[in-house]
Amino acid sequence: MTERYRRAGFGGRVGWGKRPALLVIDMANAWTRPDKTFGSDLSGVTDSIVELLAVFRRKELPRYFTTMAYDPDMRELGEVFAKKIPGTRTMVRGTADVELIPELGRQPDETLIEKPRASAFVGTNLTSQLISDGVDTVVVTGCSTSGCIRATCESAIDLNFRVIVPLEAVGDRSSYAHAANLLDIDNRSGDVTPLSDVLKHLG
Amino acid sequence: MTERYRRAGFGGRVGWGKRPALLVIDMANAWTRPDKTFGSDLSGVTDSIVELLAVFRRKELPRYFTTMAYDPDMRELGEVFAKKIPGTRTMVRGTADVELIPELGRQPDETLIEKPRASAFVGTNLTSQLISDGVDTVVVTGCSTSGCIRATCESAIDLNFRVIVPLEAVGDRSSYAHAANLLDIDNRSGDVTPLSDVLKHLG
Amino acid sequence: MTERYRRAGFGGRVGWGKRPALLVIDMANAWTRPDKTFGSDLSGVTDSIVELLAVFRRKELPRYFTTMAYDPDMRELGEVFAKKIPGTRTMVRGTADVELIPELGRQPDETLIEKPRASAFVGTNLTSQLISDGVDTVVVTGCSTSGCIRATCESAIDLNFRVIVPLEAVGDRSSYAHAANLLDIDNRSGDVTPLSDVLKHLG
Amino acid sequence: MTERYRRAGFGGRVGWGKRPALLVIDMANAWTRPDKTFGSDLSGVTDSIVELLAVFRRKELPRYFTTMAYDPDMRELGEVFAKKIPGTRTMVRGTADVELIPELGRQPDETLIEKPRASAFVGTNLTSQLISDGVDTVVVTGCSTSGCIRATCESAIDLNFRVIVPLEAVGDRSSYAHAANLLDIDNRSGDVTPLSDVLKHLG
Repeated sequence: MTERYRRAGFGGRVGWGKRPALLVIDMANAWTRPDKTFGSDLSGVTDSIVELLAVFRRKELPRYFTTMAYDPDMRELGEVFAKKIPGTRTMVRGTADVELIPELGRQPDETLIEKPRASAFVGTNLTSQLISDGVDTVVVTGCSTSGCIRATCESAIDLNFRVIVPLEAVGDRSSYAHAANLLDIDNRSGDVTPLSDVLKHLG
Repeated sequence: MTERYRRAGFGGRVGWGKRPALLVIDMANAWTRPDKTFGSDLSGVTDSIVELLAVFRRKELPRYFTTMAYDPDMRELGEVFAKKIPGTRTMVRGTADVELIPELGRQPDETLIEKPRASAFVGTNLTSQLISDGVDTVVVTGCSTSGCIRATCESAIDLNFRVIVPLEAVGDRSSYAHAANLLDIDNRSGDVTPLSDVLKHLG
Repeated sequence: MTERYRRAGFGGRVGWGKRPALLVIDMANAWTRPDKTFGSDLSGVTDSIVELLAVFRRKELPRYFTTMAYDPDMRELGEVFAKKIPGTRTMVRGTADVELIPELGRQPDETLIEKPRASAFVGTNLTSQLISDGVDTVVVTGCSTSGCIRATCESAIDLNFRVIVPLEAVGDRSSYAHAANLLDIDNRSGDVTPLSDVLKHLG
Repeated sequence: MTERYRRAGFGGRVGWGKRPALLVIDMANAWTRPDKTFGSDLSGVTDSIVELLAVFRRKELPRYFTTMAYDPDMRELGEVFAKKIPGTRTMVRGTADVELIPELGRQPDETLIEKPRASAFVGTNLTSQLISDGVDTVVVTGCSTSGCIRATCESAIDLNFRVIVPLEAVGDRSSYAHAANLLDIDNRSGDVTPLSDVLKHLG
């Protein structure tokens, strides 16, 4: 399948620009606690992100976190979105479910975006903040590969940001969806790259 | 995998609204001629779309077509996008490659959108036209399932349009990518529905 | 000047659609208390909005409120925006300044949007909510005529929503900017209409 | 009025970034020929833009041109927009009216964007191209001050691009609308600057 897509003119390498930002997508309790509706085991992903955060902080490169959160009436969701993904109805602003996991140790100067949709760019002012920070490359991490990661990578390349996806820093509740979407991402939006190579480039 | 996602609160049925529009995505020569870079055999998809077009025309419901086309200098693409999908560099405005296939018989009052990105909503004024036409439901057809179809479905549900994907009316050059993305679409953005059910509902 | 613009093909009447929503823009303490940086006397505007709210509530038509609010670090603003309008730096999320005025009596089922920019559509998911609510007409009220009102009207017509601006329900700290922008709005984006006519149409 | 707005925390100076682009808005025959519906005398504006183009070309900085153009059926406009500004119905793709004026001498490597709305950013992929070109500052020129210039400046600052408006390089069919909107722009989105200062900075 990769071969078929490469021949069709997909999957080129884009590589790094001059100023990368780290995007940490939806690493909140609802996704990382396996007993939660949306949850699965993301401990390896968490460890990888913690490593990346340390480097981005040391180098004073911009970091952005996202979660999904709505007012209790869920009006922001809209009827269609709420019907398609009923699980979103549990994401109430201010509750523990939508809070970032403590392992990330989010700092006061690190932006937290409450995004209403899968892509971190849709219905938020992330584009504006990346332009303000002079960013040309986004390193996309977190969950889920087949949902918010993929959608965020696509929005980013639509805007001509370079997209790097560290393989060990993204996860999904389904290994099938994870694998299939990594192929699509690599073909269409982001360079899927081993974490060690990402750390080496940054280090 | 479907089971895993259903339990996690995905894959609800959204159903039809009051006024559907037909979106025919990228059914141009570059995609439908198997000897072309982007091409694969989409004859079954074409037949299904022709059936749907006949119904939407008879009922005077809105129809939109898209293709991808750029000026010869390809500046509109941007360096990042052009590197990731080098095949897009062949999509020159005004050439046969980017022209809709004649089987569709596009009428003068049917909108043709030259979209710069995978989603028909990104970098175009499609949203504005759908609102003008009072549309609340989009029937998404064409190619490729893992690219422009998926991206268009996601933009549509982000905006709270109801999304119907007639199974036989979308195609992809890879059967693996086709199947994996139909699952994601059904879980996250659009109701994947047999063509016969779509025709029955409309008829 | 109006004459000059009319002859040039501007300023047509658009009129009402089938389902209007009420947008109440930035009626928070920072704007309505004359002793505040952004403040001016908006008591007449407040009275007009209270009248409109009563009608929209009685008829169970959708109502949306906005305010502007940022985390204390102001990172969401971005350096450029913060330099151009330094006054925005005082708009801290959770403080009294950014709170809606009590006269409006916002109900729990009425959406409150914290918008990052002048237009209520930019960096928010308002478009998505209007589509979900089946809205085709927006009645735009609040402040300031030359800033957030004008920007919101323009975004709305860009999306082909019909725009009605009840004359007595919008205000500005400068009477010159108020008058000049009402002309531009009437020519380019919204039908500026006496409040009595708006109430008559709705009633 | 300026004083009132300055005290309220508007009208800060943003200044230049590292890499400016030149935006030339709607300098097509429909606007520059006084006998046309949209037309007025913009000869001084044209001269100023020609001067700026020479500098941007010599320094190999990015240049973008826009015009407004629709297919003959005008479906892209939408009913609401077409009713509000009936003059837009004359802007047919491919006709002389929508063609850039020859004085500008547009080069093959200079992007031309057919924008559907007032802002050059709405319904186009301009944002994506500016990011691709590494631009952090836009110099906005052309017409009309109270319409497409103002809307473009606002979209640009919404995205945290620095906005410079060379006073002599923007024009409007109404001197009243021109003056009022320059004040609003200077207060809210762009630094209105004498052309000589712009040329000095660039030179």
